[in-house]
Amino acid sequence: MLIEEMIRDVERELLRLLSEQERPSALVEAMRWAVEGGGKRIRPRICLAAAVAAGGTATDALLPACAVELLHSYTLVHDDLPAMDNDAERRGKPSVWAKFGEANAILAGDALQALAFTALAQTPEHRIGARAKMIEFFGRCALGVVRGQVEDIVPGTKDVPFIYEHKTADLFMAAAVTGALAGGGDDASVEKLRLYAYHLGLAFQYEDDLLDDDSPFSRDETLRLVQSETDAALAALSGLPGDATSLAELARVLVNRTR
Amino acid sequence: MLIEEMIRDVERELLRLLSEQERPSALVEAMRWAVEGGGKRIRPRICLAAAVAAGGTATDALLPACAVELLHSYTLVHDDLPAMDNDAERRGKPSVWAKFGEANAILAGDALQALAFTALAQTPEHRIGARAKMIEFFGRCALGVVRGQVEDIVPGTKDVPFIYEHKTADLFMAAAVTGALAGGGDDASVEKLRLYAYHLGLAFQYEDDLLDDDSPFSRDETLRLVQSETDAALAALSGLPGDATSLAELARVLVNRTR
Repeated sequence: MLIEEMIRDVERELLRLLSEQERPSALVEAMRWAVEGGGKRIRPRICLAAAVAAGGTATDALLPACAVELLHSYTLVHDDLPAMDNDAERRGKPSVWAKFGEANAILAGDALQALAFTALAQTPEHRIGARAKMIEFFGRCALGVVRGQVEDIVPGTKDVPFIYEHKTADLFMAAAVTGALAGGGDDASVEKLRLYAYHLGLAFQYEDDLLDDDSPFSRDETLRLVQSETDAALAALSGLPGDATSLAELARVLVNRTR
Repeated sequence: MLIEEMIRDVERELLRLLSEQERPSALVEAMRWAVEGGGKRIRPRICLAAAVAAGGTATDALLPACAVELLHSYTLVHDDLPAMDNDAERRGKPSVWAKFGEANAILAGDALQALAFTALAQTPEHRIGARAKMIEFFGRCALGVVRGQVEDIVPGTKDVPFIYEHKTADLFMAAAVTGALAGGGDDASVEKLRLYAYHLGLAFQYEDDLLDDDSPFSRDETLRLVQSETDAALAALSGLPGDATSLAELARVLVNRTR
């Protein structure tokens, strides 16, 4: 599968971006620890596959794919902090603050967010203005993720759809839209791919609730939601100029993790 | 003075950017608290004046001026955190974490950084590619500020010039370079203005050391450094296509705070 091969290029490019800074070594090591944590690289996959579905190549979206993973990594580093979820472990390893201290973890997260935008600013563009659109949309999603996280931690009644839309779907949308724009997608293709990612993000989050046994809804209701959001994601893929097979496959893999 | 009038526009534009998000209110309030803290808006002034010196107008640099202030504000919010400098006050008011809690302060800082890049991505460009250059340079400076901060807090011998270059001069350079690019400056003008800001940033930092009575060098040596960096900043301003009077005046005001 082409996307699988490209993911190795994303890993290499991430390391290159991280190794542009040599010092201070405490910062560089903390940033690497955060990014090399062994994640599934779902968002870079969406990004690369969106470039293909929009009529471009996966290579077009190499830098945006890195940018979304850098952004995702920073949110995890900050989420784990003692003042937030207070998680000393992530994926079976010490979390960044547990290994490098709180101050370094805050700063490593800050640096990862800056690096994400820097990577995006270096993306070649097929259409004039595509890169600016990419960065503006990505910025709104980066802000959206924070909005979702604040809603999640604020005491009192939570607006669950708001949290899911922003904490999860915004990053999926950032991946799809930057990938589509980098691949030279026209407005209609970009919008289809944004919709795909929106619904996939929600399906993914509901599926996560099932896996964590932590759903705000009944199990049957959550299964129904996963199904309807997945159907909506797949429906959004029709009529794209490029091959959307990888995106359809990704949707099916992501929402069948429990079954 | 034109720059003074434009600063009021910057204040209004900052409020507009901040009010685009309506919720969660905890986040919006914390972001406003951080930005409305009554700072001197030095970096937006540099940005606006750099656009003029590069041959454009201050209005060209309205969004970059907001972006540098948003970035500066986020660094202050994170610097004040208990895990960092542990400052419960800033400019005579509770710091963001003291007023809104640590988690909200971390997240408000994160959101301010994202908003800075979003503002930059919306900047009109006079030359094709100027906006991408702006964002890439800004991103490197945003990363640089974090590198300087990590070097500052890491235990052991500190590389003082490295800290000053990154913690202070990088943000001054981000202001001057984004302003120059937004004003339509050519490569030579942008480089002159980058140099101006680099030296002004160092002069400003040495002057700050004098004010805080916290210099790594003797008072005489620090005074000499302030003078030589100011001279270098002023020298960089010759041969610019636009009016550099405001930048020269700014340099003289900033480095005469003790005398």
